[in-house]
Amino acid sequence: MGQVVLLSGGMDSAVCLALAIRKYGKENIIALAFSYGQKHSREIQNAQNVANYFDVKIVVANIDAQIFQGSSSTLLQGNGPIEHRSYGEIIKESGEGTVDTYVPFRNGLMLSQAAALAYSQELAEVSYGAHSDDAAGSAYPDCSPLFFESMAKAISAGTGGNVTLVAPLIRNNKAGVVKMGIKLSVPFELTRSCYETDSVSCGQCGTCRDRIEAFKKNGLKDPIEYAIKIEWNKD
Amino acid sequence: MGQVVLLSGGMDSAVCLALAIRKYGKENIIALAFSYGQKHSREIQNAQNVANYFDVKIVVANIDAQIFQGSSSTLLQGNGPIEHRSYGEIIKESGEGTVDTYVPFRNGLMLSQAAALAYSQELAEVSYGAHSDDAAGSAYPDCSPLFFESMAKAISAGTGGNVTLVAPLIRNNKAGVVKMGIKLSVPFELTRSCYETDSVSCGQCGTCRDRIEAFKKNGLKDPIEYAIKIEWNKD
Repeated sequence: MGQVVLLSGGMDSAVCLALAIRKYGKENIIALAFSYGQKHSREIQNAQNVANYFDVKIVVANIDAQIFQGSSSTLLQGNGPIEHRSYGEIIKESGEGTVDTYVPFRNGLMLSQAAALAYSQELAEVSYGAHSDDAAGSAYPDCSPLFFESMAKAISAGTGGNVTLVAPLIRNNKAGVVKMGIKLSVPFELTRSCYETDSVSCGQCGTCRDRIEAFKKNGLKDPIEYAIKIEWNKD
Repeated sequence: MGQVVLLSGGMDSAVCLALAIRKYGKENIIALAFSYGQKHSREIQNAQNVANYFDVKIVVANIDAQIFQGSSSTLLQGNGPIEHRSYGEIIKESGEGTVDTYVPFRNGLMLSQAAALAYSQELAEVSYGAHSDDAAGSAYPDCSPLFFESMAKAISAGTGGNVTLVAPLIRNNKAGVVKMGIKLSVPFELTRSCYETDSVSCGQCGTCRDRIEAFKKNGLKDPIEYAIKIEWNKD
């Protein structure tokens, strides 16, 4: 009984953590965050803050950057700038391929490590915050339903049936995730979605735009600070 | 075109590497070995020696030992002794569960990293040396055909169809792997299978026994040294 929860420091995984705590109690949960050479490594501190808020144990594991040798992912340190456009626009232009911010097989890497930790700790589940907006087109193939289903089978088979992969948000879109988080009193003010390096979120990268939009759709103002003026709904 | 080959320092993966070189040429191959807190970390040097022999690039990546916190796997440093019995006997006694030397989801961890490296380097395949003797019973669930098939789907889906997982030895047993290696002039004298820490192979752990048996079935003497006297076939 219990769960390893992938915790990125963003809002989706914070909602996953709140759901896990409600289901199993905080003493049966381990949050797992990663340092993998991401530009926005500030998110690790956000993950720690969220885990501390909920008084849950957190492990910050290191992924060896050597395995990304040669990758041009703009999310990785040393590579080109992150686009300041919405994913809708980016996908429209890039067509069939992955987007520039795709990190090679990142979800596979993180979920494998979560499965190993769950088996080691005798926790029966691994959860992560994939939701229905994640897999738009072929932008992030490691967020697709086919990836999720195959990875779930691989984790179950590879651990002798001891670990099950769950994605509790998979039927919700990002606006639905905000709604659920509000109900669960998730401290969104402690989270961070921005892909840039600055402490204040840029408000212009694809993930900032998605987040802002998700709050707007709920008629809410995001509690975090942005570097540009955002037009929130009138009261 | 090209392949990332999981290279453990043992004989199966050395045969995989020889097959990959024959198929794609050495300049299109990267060997990938891991340091993961294994007792028998000497195997990493063997992997390097095999890669050097074939003049192939090798990456030695680190798996963060934190994700094995709480694991009782006897293959990991700090845990109890490795049994000096054959897998046949061990499995007979342990019944349905995994064996003591099972490292939580190890193949999932390694294959995920290999997939990330292959995508980063624009190599189309990942290969590993699973063979038909590996998955006996439920001893090593991450060597089972079901794991292989699911993981192959997860890697394909999660990389947008850019990386394919192959297991070229999957229809061979270990004796067949020796036979194939001899044909391909694999330098078995540079490999190591033993799970113990000593430089000379113990000849008594499950993996030493399997290796010795595989050479015997081919009427051959294993070129590596053993700490005990092995009764090889008469000439």
